[in-house]
Amino acid sequence: MKKYNFNAGPSILPEEVIKQTAEAVLDFQGEGLSILEISHRAKYFQPVVDEAEALMKELLGVPEGYRVIFLGGGASLQFCMVPFNLMGKKAAYLNTGVWSKKALKEAKGLAPVFGAEAIELAASTNSIPMDFEVPQDCDYIHITTNNTIYGTEISERKLQEIYRKKGNVRLVADMSSDILSRPVDVSKYDIIYGGAQKNIAPAGVTFVIIKEECLGHVDRYIPTMLDYRTHIDGGSMFNTPPVLPIYTALLNMRWLKEHGGIKFIDERNQKKADLLYNCIDNSKLFTATIQDKEDRSRMNICFVLKPGYEDLFDEFFKFATSKGMVGIKGHRLVGGFRASCYNAMDVEGVQALVDCIKEFEAMH
Amino acid sequence: MKKYNFNAGPSILPEEVIKQTAEAVLDFQGEGLSILEISHRAKYFQPVVDEAEALMKELLGVPEGYRVIFLGGGASLQFCMVPFNLMGKKAAYLNTGVWSKKALKEAKGLAPVFGAEAIELAASTNSIPMDFEVPQDCDYIHITTNNTIYGTEISERKLQEIYRKKGNVRLVADMSSDILSRPVDVSKYDIIYGGAQKNIAPAGVTFVIIKEECLGHVDRYIPTMLDYRTHIDGGSMFNTPPVLPIYTALLNMRWLKEHGGIKFIDERNQKKADLLYNCIDNSKLFTATIQDKEDRSRMNICFVLKPGYEDLFDEFFKFATSKGMVGIKGHRLVGGFRASCYNAMDVEGVQALVDCIKEFEAMH
Repeated sequence: MKKYNFNAGPSILPEEVIKQTAEAVLDFQGEGLSILEISHRAKYFQPVVDEAEALMKELLGVPEGYRVIFLGGGASLQFCMVPFNLMGKKAAYLNTGVWSKKALKEAKGLAPVFGAEAIELAASTNSIPMDFEVPQDCDYIHITTNNTIYGTEISERKLQEIYRKKGNVRLVADMSSDILSRPVDVSKYDIIYGGAQKNIAPAGVTFVIIKEECLGHVDRYIPTMLDYRTHIDGGSMFNTPPVLPIYTALLNMRWLKEHGGIKFIDERNQKKADLLYNCIDNSKLFTATIQDKEDRSRMNICFVLKPGYEDLFDEFFKFATSKGMVGIKGHRLVGGFRASCYNAMDVEGVQALVDCIKEFEAMH
Repeated sequence: MKKYNFNAGPSILPEEVIKQTAEAVLDFQGEGLSILEISHRAKYFQPVVDEAEALMKELLGVPEGYRVIFLGGGASLQFCMVPFNLMGKKAAYLNTGVWSKKALKEAKGLAPVFGAEAIELAASTNSIPMDFEVPQDCDYIHITTNNTIYGTEISERKLQEIYRKKGNVRLVADMSSDILSRPVDVSKYDIIYGGAQKNIAPAGVTFVIIKEECLGHVDRYIPTMLDYRTHIDGGSMFNTPPVLPIYTALLNMRWLKEHGGIKFIDERNQKKADLLYNCIDNSKLFTATIQDKEDRSRMNICFVLKPGYEDLFDEFFKFATSKGMVGIKGHRLVGGFRASCYNAMDVEGVQALVDCIKEFEAMH
């Protein structure tokens, strides 16, 4: 039976990327060695890192003055790396979910160590709050563009409003779960980072897009591995990088480019989201957890059973599983269901879930 | 042509581990999903982490009170994690190579921040110096059991001497390049860590064996991701772990157990090292860079052309390459050649290199 992978991350990758990775595990580029056992210093691996950096820049239209690096440790390590590198006297966080809350927690933990303060601009898990001003004495503000758990995403209109509000304050964004799914004006940001295990790669690699100019302005010891300059100078190879995840990231970005890049995937992601939200909005059994359509995530679509129908949870879950749906159970903080529709999920996959919902409804 | 992978790391893995990994990339345990796209929270991944932790404990005979965790970020991140978690007033480092020097550099960088000091016990790259005493007011001493670049390794006899010298001071060891290659009395250590890309796994995962009792004795803010307690409490899954590298680590440890565990591999590693060092010691063209036999690494065997024969470098390198030898160029700090003979390299592979050396000698 065909499986439809709606996992929230690590998550679906294109079939051909998976096949190409499997081939490289058996024999990397005809070298007679597995990608699992090649040296990252080998002459044939440097081009992988170089092309991955170049492709990320090309796909997102990254301007001059920025570097792209690939690291281990996950986005969670970035929660402390950002303050270590950028926090002077004050940092402000827009708290829109579990991950931005963790980023803020880390900044609040480190602020006293650095003689600084970390403040919350506004907080909401079920919408993107815009009732805040940005204090102009902040070193940076931090946003999380997509809320994987509750299923909100900052719309382009609201991003534009944040760009205006921030004035000259630096902008840092965790884009773990919507990077490469939509256009982004990178020039507005000083740092964009994320775990790559949603739209880019398997688990184990973190990307950071960084404006070099923003570094070197704090006066303190930054542990070598937490200093972005270490990894920029080392070209992502200061220490042994996660070789296979970086290679798969490259294969996946090649796939995206061949299929039409950000424009293609942005349109396809919109089509998928419209299809599923439209089905849920017209459902007699289900309702979306995020009511304001502007704030709805296209990546993580959350829905619950309507009052009176909650008992059908197990039955629907079993039914959907029998139809090949994988990973649709909602996060325990939200309950219900969550269909993560990352780049590699095609329209047919979302249509299969819609058909499954409709068939289930017809039975009740 | 058969390739013999003598890479210093990432490095050779057993053929069947590579094949099993490739199968999991196409279909993980018959679930119809790739290991690249399964959720680390899936019911079928927790057993992987649990078994990997259990197998590491079983293979090394890890006593009660210790935990094994698998992290991202590399051993280089451990260079700052150790001081963050253990440094009170003083830490001492035995400096026996490039990596221990980096560990010491990090401790020296952080010491003033913590109001502490980091001292060097003794230093040498071409031998294991034992002319030091351990100040009993140290919070810990740090050793690097194998020197990947210069090719020294702390012998069991010298380890026993270090255990005596340390008295009640905690012992921390970077065992990146000889973990699981020899027996180790874990009870003598508080922390053993290492990048797993030599004897355990592909690049992208770091192991830490930690005595829980040693944590929680410093009074400062430890960034969440740098706090070992975070990862112990989270069972290596506080954040998304490097899924594939952990799975391959498990496959590789199963392979080791099936073949006879540490006893088997220790004997085989000795046989391989004897074979190659014996060849080099009796060579008219080559000589080992490490003269004291007790201090010679079994994992990284370094040799250079004797005076008068240096011009043969390119010729031998080409000849060896034509015979299938991979990764035998020495590190630029040492020059010459380095044959890394990690666990997955079999006696036949080392014999092939010996034959290659002898054939080359016969030609000159």
